[in-house]
Amino acid sequence: MSQVTTTDLYEVTMALSYLREDMRAPATFSLFVRDLPPGRGFLVSAGLEPALDYLSRYRVGGTDVQEFAEALGRPAADLEPLRGLSFDGQVRAVPEGRLVFAGEPLLEVTAPLPQAQLVETYLLCLLCHQTTVATKAARCVIAAGGRPLVDFSLRRNHGPGAGMQAARLGALVGFAGTSNVAAATRYGIPASGTMAHSYIETFPSEEDAFRAFARAHPGPVTFLVDTYDTEHGVATAARVLVDLQRGPGCAVRLDSGDLSALAHRARATLDAAGLRDVRITASGGLDEYAVAMLVRNGAPIDVFAVGTKVGTAADAPYLDAAYKLVEYDGRPVMKLSSAKVTAPASKQVFRGPGLRDVIGLANEAPPEGTEPLLQTVMRGGLRSEPPDTLGAARARFEADLAQLPESARRIEDPVAPVPAVSTPLSVLTTVVRHRIEARTGAGR
Amino acid sequence: MSQVTTTDLYEVTMALSYLREDMRAPATFSLFVRDLPPGRGFLVSAGLEPALDYLSRYRVGGTDVQEFAEALGRPAADLEPLRGLSFDGQVRAVPEGRLVFAGEPLLEVTAPLPQAQLVETYLLCLLCHQTTVATKAARCVIAAGGRPLVDFSLRRNHGPGAGMQAARLGALVGFAGTSNVAAATRYGIPASGTMAHSYIETFPSEEDAFRAFARAHPGPVTFLVDTYDTEHGVATAARVLVDLQRGPGCAVRLDSGDLSALAHRARATLDAAGLRDVRITASGGLDEYAVAMLVRNGAPIDVFAVGTKVGTAADAPYLDAAYKLVEYDGRPVMKLSSAKVTAPASKQVFRGPGLRDVIGLANEAPPEGTEPLLQTVMRGGLRSEPPDTLGAARARFEADLAQLPESARRIEDPVAPVPAVSTPLSVLTTVVRHRIEARTGAGR
Repeated sequence: MSQVTTTDLYEVTMALSYLREDMRAPATFSLFVRDLPPGRGFLVSAGLEPALDYLSRYRVGGTDVQEFAEALGRPAADLEPLRGLSFDGQVRAVPEGRLVFAGEPLLEVTAPLPQAQLVETYLLCLLCHQTTVATKAARCVIAAGGRPLVDFSLRRNHGPGAGMQAARLGALVGFAGTSNVAAATRYGIPASGTMAHSYIETFPSEEDAFRAFARAHPGPVTFLVDTYDTEHGVATAARVLVDLQRGPGCAVRLDSGDLSALAHRARATLDAAGLRDVRITASGGLDEYAVAMLVRNGAPIDVFAVGTKVGTAADAPYLDAAYKLVEYDGRPVMKLSSAKVTAPASKQVFRGPGLRDVIGLANEAPPEGTEPLLQTVMRGGLRSEPPDTLGAARARFEADLAQLPESARRIEDPVAPVPAVSTPLSVLTTVVRHRIEARTGAGR
Repeated sequence: MSQVTTTDLYEVTMALSYLREDMRAPATFSLFVRDLPPGRGFLVSAGLEPALDYLSRYRVGGTDVQEFAEALGRPAADLEPLRGLSFDGQVRAVPEGRLVFAGEPLLEVTAPLPQAQLVETYLLCLLCHQTTVATKAARCVIAAGGRPLVDFSLRRNHGPGAGMQAARLGALVGFAGTSNVAAATRYGIPASGTMAHSYIETFPSEEDAFRAFARAHPGPVTFLVDTYDTEHGVATAARVLVDLQRGPGCAVRLDSGDLSALAHRARATLDAAGLRDVRITASGGLDEYAVAMLVRNGAPIDVFAVGTKVGTAADAPYLDAAYKLVEYDGRPVMKLSSAKVTAPASKQVFRGPGLRDVIGLANEAPPEGTEPLLQTVMRGGLRSEPPDTLGAARARFEADLAQLPESARRIEDPVAPVPAVSTPLSVLTTVVRHRIEARTGAGR
């Protein structure tokens, strides 16, 4: 499918009107999250790299024009003004990995109005989804308190594309690996995987299965021990590992039952067999809440494999994000309708120590001791910098996380920092509101 | 990315072991949902068409072998046994659009063990996601009580691929259209779209915006009326429509505020202007709960546009589905671990009137007056039938929905029918359990 036509039809109807009216002046749109989802003390900025790829390649081709025409039920000739349109605007954005809060722009696009409008849907789709999943994964990292995490979510993600991103975003916040081979290859993430219950079931006994697996895989192996009876399975695994003189790098995986109790008993069994360096991996419906509880209970689990609930961000699977026009042809604009007021003009986020943020105007002087979050990442439709790396994004995430207040870090009932608003932005918001109310008769 | 490597690594480690042990006998895996998510009285079977495409094309190529080797940290030569492997098995499945319940197989694969194993992850990914979203969309159709629904979810879906499916699955259960142009083209769905708030804001006034839009679009137009003040916006829209002598096919869209109250007032304003045939579309965070309440309140809304919460199935974004080995080399198998017992052997679902289902063995004689749900859809790796159409799937959905008990149809606290289990399947389950317990020492 074409990325150009993977868009809401209304982007096209609007762009056509803008072209007809010759409204090609620069417009700035700001993509931001109005409120954090319940249970979130922060967001992890994500999706920018794919978004820049999209914008770099954006070009309305002949087939796209045909598709648009068919969607509108109009002759292709009516859509010709769109042919060849590409994105040659400027993008300022928060780099991937940084923590952001409600009301802070993740990305601002400045481009001739039709271009800036046409890219709305796809940009929202990328940034909303990826920020949602990166945030969920980051909470798992916090909950695991330094123990490695692995992404097992592919089978339950919202399609294979979402699965690729779940692996990438896990790695972005520090996961140690993914089960997804294609993602491991594409993003340079360690791949991880063992065996399913079905594997055990195809052999006459669990021990036969373990021995066959070890025959096929001369390196470290992980044995899944809960197919029939977990304690029995751990004892069998220990016997096979001792017999084969395997140990370092090997593991047993628990996938059901009371993981804390079973991990304690498994540890005891392994230790008694002299297998102190055989690790215990746990999986099975884990998310940050379950991981935090296992860590709190002192469960001797060495690696957490998280899947379904993390890859789908199950408790908060979307963001209340918007892509709002904030400036057109040098004039700040805003929307007034109930409960959805947006602040006008191009913005910047000034970050002080401890992630104390001030949202201000893009052209304000930065307050003393603050750092601007939005960077210019694209000029004239071209990237300003080479593509970012996962490692760089992870370093940014870790640096911000180290500064995050405890109240926002905690897993249960976190409280998100509320960014301040600069005086120039407040004043401008009031002025623009009055101007619009006077003009439209709104607010009566 | 390759569909072959978009898989969990463990599928590959297992397949390698099976090939090494020469375990190529036929295996049957059953893909089913253990329990329905909370708030669901049924599921709509979906994802089969893309799954059959995937299986038809499945073939491990040279690059795939290389990727697998790198993921495992082994020489490519070790992975050579996989090269050229394709899927030549049999698939029995519930056609898309049919209603299914907990424990019923959506799909059963019978193929040489390595093949049947390798396709697990991708099949789960497709069927889980699509059944989840189709079910959510179906509940919206029930809630809307015959009023048309439109899919606006693309911007909030879990990536563009999920957006394509959300549009397809909406159409599958009877949505009237989608905002997604690429999906409209690919699946032959009517495209739908109007204007954003930003469009209004770029013009000196709302009226200027409406007039400009009408200039660009000579056919029916929809005016978004809540950018500044909704009642004022409706009055302006009415004035412009009357002035331009537009009306039939035109609409106003409400996107915020108390939709029921605003719709009543909008209807009155439009009617007073002689615009009885101008429709009212509502959008803004709608799902089946909101739609049901608006319908119950008698809100004069003609079209519901649903997005975020439906496309992400926000209140239940995943299924507890499994792909379990039920038969290997002619021997029924099952898994006993805590709370996850699976029934052995290849199955069939026998559907009686009123969706009274019996889960039985595939080779049982169908009980009198029942219809088997699982059809053979692939033999020897080839489709048994030409690709299904959305229209045929929709007809199946509508026929099943007409039979669904009221308690399962309702939006709040639905109660799902519980399929019965046939005597032959019950007996076999007991026999196999005893056999496994005796052999493994489990269940002590």
